[in-house]
Amino acid sequence: MTIRLNTDNLKGYVEQKDLEVLASEVQEAARALEQGTGTGSDYAGWLHLPSSIQESFLDELVSLGEEVRAHSDCLISIGIGGSYLGIRSTLEFLRGEAKIPVRFAGHNMNADYLAALLDSVKDQDISVVVISKSGTTTEPALAFRIIKEFLEKKYNADELRKRIICVTDQAKGALRKIADQNGYRSFVIPDNVGGRFSVLTPVGLVPLAIAGIDVKALVKGAREGEKEYGKDSNIAYDYAASRYQLFWEGRVIEVLASFYDNMLYVNEWWKQLYGESEGKEGKGIFPASLILSTDLHSMGQLLQDGVRNMFETFVQIETQKQRIVIPRDDQDLDQLNCVAGKDLDFVNKQGYKATAAAHFEGDVPNMTISLDKADAEHLGQLYYFFEKAVAISGYLLGVNPFDQPGVEAYKKKMFELIGKK
Amino acid sequence: MTIRLNTDNLKGYVEQKDLEVLASEVQEAARALEQGTGTGSDYAGWLHLPSSIQESFLDELVSLGEEVRAHSDCLISIGIGGSYLGIRSTLEFLRGEAKIPVRFAGHNMNADYLAALLDSVKDQDISVVVISKSGTTTEPALAFRIIKEFLEKKYNADELRKRIICVTDQAKGALRKIADQNGYRSFVIPDNVGGRFSVLTPVGLVPLAIAGIDVKALVKGAREGEKEYGKDSNIAYDYAASRYQLFWEGRVIEVLASFYDNMLYVNEWWKQLYGESEGKEGKGIFPASLILSTDLHSMGQLLQDGVRNMFETFVQIETQKQRIVIPRDDQDLDQLNCVAGKDLDFVNKQGYKATAAAHFEGDVPNMTISLDKADAEHLGQLYYFFEKAVAISGYLLGVNPFDQPGVEAYKKKMFELIGKK
Repeated sequence: MTIRLNTDNLKGYVEQKDLEVLASEVQEAARALEQGTGTGSDYAGWLHLPSSIQESFLDELVSLGEEVRAHSDCLISIGIGGSYLGIRSTLEFLRGEAKIPVRFAGHNMNADYLAALLDSVKDQDISVVVISKSGTTTEPALAFRIIKEFLEKKYNADELRKRIICVTDQAKGALRKIADQNGYRSFVIPDNVGGRFSVLTPVGLVPLAIAGIDVKALVKGAREGEKEYGKDSNIAYDYAASRYQLFWEGRVIEVLASFYDNMLYVNEWWKQLYGESEGKEGKGIFPASLILSTDLHSMGQLLQDGVRNMFETFVQIETQKQRIVIPRDDQDLDQLNCVAGKDLDFVNKQGYKATAAAHFEGDVPNMTISLDKADAEHLGQLYYFFEKAVAISGYLLGVNPFDQPGVEAYKKKMFELIGKK
Repeated sequence: MTIRLNTDNLKGYVEQKDLEVLASEVQEAARALEQGTGTGSDYAGWLHLPSSIQESFLDELVSLGEEVRAHSDCLISIGIGGSYLGIRSTLEFLRGEAKIPVRFAGHNMNADYLAALLDSVKDQDISVVVISKSGTTTEPALAFRIIKEFLEKKYNADELRKRIICVTDQAKGALRKIADQNGYRSFVIPDNVGGRFSVLTPVGLVPLAIAGIDVKALVKGAREGEKEYGKDSNIAYDYAASRYQLFWEGRVIEVLASFYDNMLYVNEWWKQLYGESEGKEGKGIFPASLILSTDLHSMGQLLQDGVRNMFETFVQIETQKQRIVIPRDDQDLDQLNCVAGKDLDFVNKQGYKATAAAHFEGDVPNMTISLDKADAEHLGQLYYFFEKAVAISGYLLGVNPFDQPGVEAYKKKMFELIGKK
């Protein structure tokens, strides 16, 4: 099981000699990361996280999932940012694999959204995972207040202890205190892993295990990634170096594009990982997402003929789980008998090939990451691939890829407006 | 009922004097549009579309909806691009107002997606709207082949005539022939309205009326827009001129951002309208979409501190349908008793104010479009606002805002690959 990177359509933009020039900087970045000498290294705990996860912990999560599902019609996962996107991206990518529905809250402050959510589950048995390092992040804290009040009307304290699970700091913070005081089960968010790198910590693994996702396969894939992208020369480094080169050639927008709609929230997870890691000190590529061929019929014109300030990274999935055969039609009015008897996915793949070629000819350099299939193991490896690459990329750019000082600006103003200390 | 535009946070980027300098160009563009002398004017049929819709036609659509819903558990809407986004954006914006579920097909070529869709409706009574001017666009034509075969196993020819409705060309094309030969009901896509401007033609109105959306209110709002944004001086012109000025100041990305998650697909509709109208001849702003506060926890860092090549347009909705009161908590561990007893939407609004101010101070100029509420009438006006503005904006930029020559490039290659003539 492995992931491939095809850079043929970077020809003329990023050549082998460019990568050779960058190789020593890449090696230096990799060494700084490994030795903990780079900026922000206090938050590089994700680097050897996959190999450090104990099998007994994964067994515990699988048991937890079985137990919680036995008394739950649905799970509400409360969290925002890194405590939301990795969970959602995994569930959407592995569409159909969750054993109970997962609903999300605490990722916005929309009354109509939350009211509709609570109304739709009011006659169901519900369990909740609430995920917050501090317990004071406004969105999930408000959602948890509201949902806790809702649950207290349905369940007594004993039932609530079966149904509320906290993922939070080991020792401090509001949610840690709430968990301890009420006797809620809790799991620990490690101190040395930032939110956007946390999908393989309890932040992602606890709700995913409760949903019934194969977390062992997810971690197995990430371990493959840790091994593969720890080598001196690997495609995560090539990806990092290529996009760095493209940025300095004026390609200020990266479009992550996939012909597979189950990639939608992986793209969103990637946008946080890359935007938040690189977008600082007036630097950083603007990350954008497309699902094709859908968005070829909206953004395709601009990609082909607009300002040439972008490049594209395709994520291809080589096999679909389901086969749909295109029927023959005797009249052939739509002229598609040329593909009658073929799989729908065959046409989708030709769409990808045609698009990558047309955009390259239209002066949009592009590369392609390929996965054999959309399973948990490949996704685990893909997560690690992107994490390793952005750390290198951030160091190449000369920024701290692990902090996010800019997110405080609006929070400070909001706290003033709502009178929060 | 009206829409407001606040440009306070353009101060220092777009001043009143800039708009005055541009005023004569804007007037010239408006005149060219009105008189049909501008480039692409063959496709300016959307300009006076709202006022030209007959009441009797809307009555017919309402009756059609009642009749189809009476024998349908769900509607499948088959289409892509402009034959998909306006329908979906309306349904998502008016969340909860559809009287039967609407599922989408023909907007991608994903076997797993389509297989899951067909599996989920196999025991239901289904009606289908298939929308395509030519009937040969690959994605919807393939989906229609597959879904037609699926329906033919469930229903006889008489039933199919009740359940399949075509929206297509008046006289020519594959879907017109299919409709006529089989006796399917059909509605006409006017020749002078391009896909991305078609939400108020039968393309949008037929499936929306079947879903039970108040199409009369949608059209009423658009008529208000036609009147309001036909005036010599109006906010659609201000929006067009401001973003044109920002583009030439190096703001090559526009982020349409809303604190209301029901805007998600309106943003997608807008991305097609703007990207496809402007993205040509090496010009055009790259349109991106955010839903906040969700995406402040992913893209917020880059917006605050990244490359200063963007501006933001917020869409605010002043009232929510549901009220959620924030509970008091005696311990107040999360320190949010400062908003106890207040509406959740109050905090969301402070989030907006804080964000607009923080981004402005962080060198991201921004403006805000405000709607009083999220109803069909406001949405109709908003659609027309964006349509009128992009036409002006395209003329200012010196491009034909009504064509899309670039979308042929990948199609041509794909047809070669699949052997289509």
